[in-house]
Amino acid sequence: MALSGFRDFYPDDCAFRNAIFAKWRDVAHRYGFVEYDGPPLEPLDLFTKKSGPEIVGQLYNFKDKGDRDVALRPEMTPTLARLVTARHKDFKKPLKWFSIPQVYRYERPQKGRGREHYQFNCDIIGEASLEADIELIALLIDTLRTFGLTEKDFVIRLSDRVFWSDVMKTYGVPDEQSYEFIQAIDKSEREGKEKFAERLSKITSNTDNLAGQVSATLDFSNDSVKSERLDTVEAGLRARGLGDYIKRDYTVVRGLAYYTGVVFEAFDRTGEFRAIAGGGRYDTLLKNLGNVDLPALGFGMGDMVLGDLLKSRGWFPEKQDDLKVYVVIADEAHRPAAMKLVQEIREFHTVEYSFQPTKVGKQFQLAEERGCQAAVVVDASLANGMVSVKDLVKREQQTVEIKNDGVLLALGAMLLDQLDEDWNEGEDEETP
Amino acid sequence: MALSGFRDFYPDDCAFRNAIFAKWRDVAHRYGFVEYDGPPLEPLDLFTKKSGPEIVGQLYNFKDKGDRDVALRPEMTPTLARLVTARHKDFKKPLKWFSIPQVYRYERPQKGRGREHYQFNCDIIGEASLEADIELIALLIDTLRTFGLTEKDFVIRLSDRVFWSDVMKTYGVPDEQSYEFIQAIDKSEREGKEKFAERLSKITSNTDNLAGQVSATLDFSNDSVKSERLDTVEAGLRARGLGDYIKRDYTVVRGLAYYTGVVFEAFDRTGEFRAIAGGGRYDTLLKNLGNVDLPALGFGMGDMVLGDLLKSRGWFPEKQDDLKVYVVIADEAHRPAAMKLVQEIREFHTVEYSFQPTKVGKQFQLAEERGCQAAVVVDASLANGMVSVKDLVKREQQTVEIKNDGVLLALGAMLLDQLDEDWNEGEDEETP
Repeated sequence: MALSGFRDFYPDDCAFRNAIFAKWRDVAHRYGFVEYDGPPLEPLDLFTKKSGPEIVGQLYNFKDKGDRDVALRPEMTPTLARLVTARHKDFKKPLKWFSIPQVYRYERPQKGRGREHYQFNCDIIGEASLEADIELIALLIDTLRTFGLTEKDFVIRLSDRVFWSDVMKTYGVPDEQSYEFIQAIDKSEREGKEKFAERLSKITSNTDNLAGQVSATLDFSNDSVKSERLDTVEAGLRARGLGDYIKRDYTVVRGLAYYTGVVFEAFDRTGEFRAIAGGGRYDTLLKNLGNVDLPALGFGMGDMVLGDLLKSRGWFPEKQDDLKVYVVIADEAHRPAAMKLVQEIREFHTVEYSFQPTKVGKQFQLAEERGCQAAVVVDASLANGMVSVKDLVKREQQTVEIKNDGVLLALGAMLLDQLDEDWNEGEDEETP
Repeated sequence: MALSGFRDFYPDDCAFRNAIFAKWRDVAHRYGFVEYDGPPLEPLDLFTKKSGPEIVGQLYNFKDKGDRDVALRPEMTPTLARLVTARHKDFKKPLKWFSIPQVYRYERPQKGRGREHYQFNCDIIGEASLEADIELIALLIDTLRTFGLTEKDFVIRLSDRVFWSDVMKTYGVPDEQSYEFIQAIDKSEREGKEKFAERLSKITSNTDNLAGQVSATLDFSNDSVKSERLDTVEAGLRARGLGDYIKRDYTVVRGLAYYTGVVFEAFDRTGEFRAIAGGGRYDTLLKNLGNVDLPALGFGMGDMVLGDLLKSRGWFPEKQDDLKVYVVIADEAHRPAAMKLVQEIREFHTVEYSFQPTKVGKQFQLAEERGCQAAVVVDASLANGMVSVKDLVKREQQTVEIKNDGVLLALGAMLLDQLDEDWNEGEDEETP
């Protein structure tokens, strides 16, 4: 058994995981992001420096044999900050970097949340303008769209940390109560109006009706405070045709202390799952961690919630554009020659064959089980330099000469044929 | 700083690593192998059960917060054995499985050997015939060939564990001295004839001249003991046209106790590097570990020695078959429309643009720095529904209508053009 909270990836699970990774990489590349990675094990203080000593309770940390305090990384941002601040002069700004680390935490495993998961991390570093916020949120939207999810499936809730600082200033909420204030906002949706009013009643302010004012803001019925930042970001996303994917929601404040601007979370519309992704701007973190003053923003998306959502929508990995060929050895005397053929075909296609002498009918059955679309039959006619090539999908067969690449040409034509058909099928699907 | 012995992967390093992974996956797929994976952290006893308590000295092991003895995996075979024995009835034999785990050990880091590396693991499970040994060694050879390495660059040294058991039987070497005997063979090349003779002189046998007999065997001048197993494997590889890649070398015994048949190691011909890969047959391991009696064989290849070898040969990742497009915003008034275009082009290609208002000349410079092959220029003519599309390689330009997918069609034609040229360049290279 695997350790509690850790996953095994049998071939089907691994194919599903890798298909998610491939989509993540593809969309990141289309946005001009480049991939980086770091060690799964880091010095413990890399994480406590960012998140405070409280974080240790959730970490998979230990003392190693050299008496170092180390931890399996719970998130990628501290490693990213370490890499960027160490060599920031080597890279032209803005940096657009992504990574797909496996991250760890020592917490009780529950549904949709184990002790490890993979996390797609995308960050833009060295760009203060809101164009970068728009770009990053567009990337998040396109990441989910690339799996076939639409505006009916998910929504990005947008909020603004600075907006709440402004509100606190407007109503004279003192700095030492800002944590309680943000907590009240964070919990307002879950806890309801009454509890919210109770929380705010304990907070000092220059208005008799702080709860009412703030509630009105959350309902968008209060125009006295505004986020021009969010106006700009929303307009930018609408210009890209992405207006249907976003919703302003000031209750999103993101727990983490280090956000400094626009923050956002992606949710499925049914509310069935945890947040799919979250992120925002953290302009002061690199200065605090590595003493390099670079504005930054990013998001993280785990593979578990996304995977559950995709499974609930019946998504499955796309068929590979390749040809699987079964070399049928009908005459064991010709096995050595058959193996030469296997070797040649494998330069271009996947080839299966039977290790053991096996009846021809059984070999065709194995070909089918392995998902082969073509078979090359080696029998007595090999003596005349000929083999049969069968299209197992169309049930057609031809005899070809081995010399002059006859087999490769026949298989190549078969692959083109099949790609054509897949293409046409794809076309049909789009026409309702 | 990363922990000692652990690597950071800046974008260039990550691209190099991923290019190796992509080649590994490609060749494994062509051989019909499917990918699996497991947790990087496993119960400690999974590893001590296979390798004995001595292994703990080299492991990255610790006690976790739940007081469990756990270890970062030093190798993949125990996890593979765990996965296969747990569900062996669900899979048709033979299984052909591969994985690319990061593996760990707590040892002093040295050149070409850190505390972690990635290891390409390929295993065939459930096939006793030597056809499987041939297939696996062919896969190893093709793995190295897929990087452009040839028989001039590397050789697979083949040996046979059973052969040595037979030799010991022939010369009456008692079981309790087999460890010393195998050690002497293992070290014979490095230590020289004299030391070898000294080691063998301490071993009981039924011949006066054990050292001389065994030396003659190593020189292939002794025909009294033979490995038919290796004869068959070599013939099989020759039939596939791979005879130039192999060499019989009885001094290869592989340290690990669990091998039961043919064993092999891949070395570069210059002898500059450590072994590139190693493996063999281990028919009793799954029975010992998981009480499931299945013959098995496999090899492992690390990314560090291979990477060093490839760098020494000037290998670098292949260019991607994609188009990078820079959208030049020559008129800021049209930024929203430009962003709509960015969004549309990104469905098919990589798109870069400037977050900040930037002079047109500077934008073209950025396009070049980012490696873009095409530019789409959005200026005042957008009012008439027109943009310019520039081929930055050929320095050609055309004006196209935005509607009716004009931009996408122009870029698509450009990509086909470029693929054509790459193809032709490739052709030229092959003609000396």
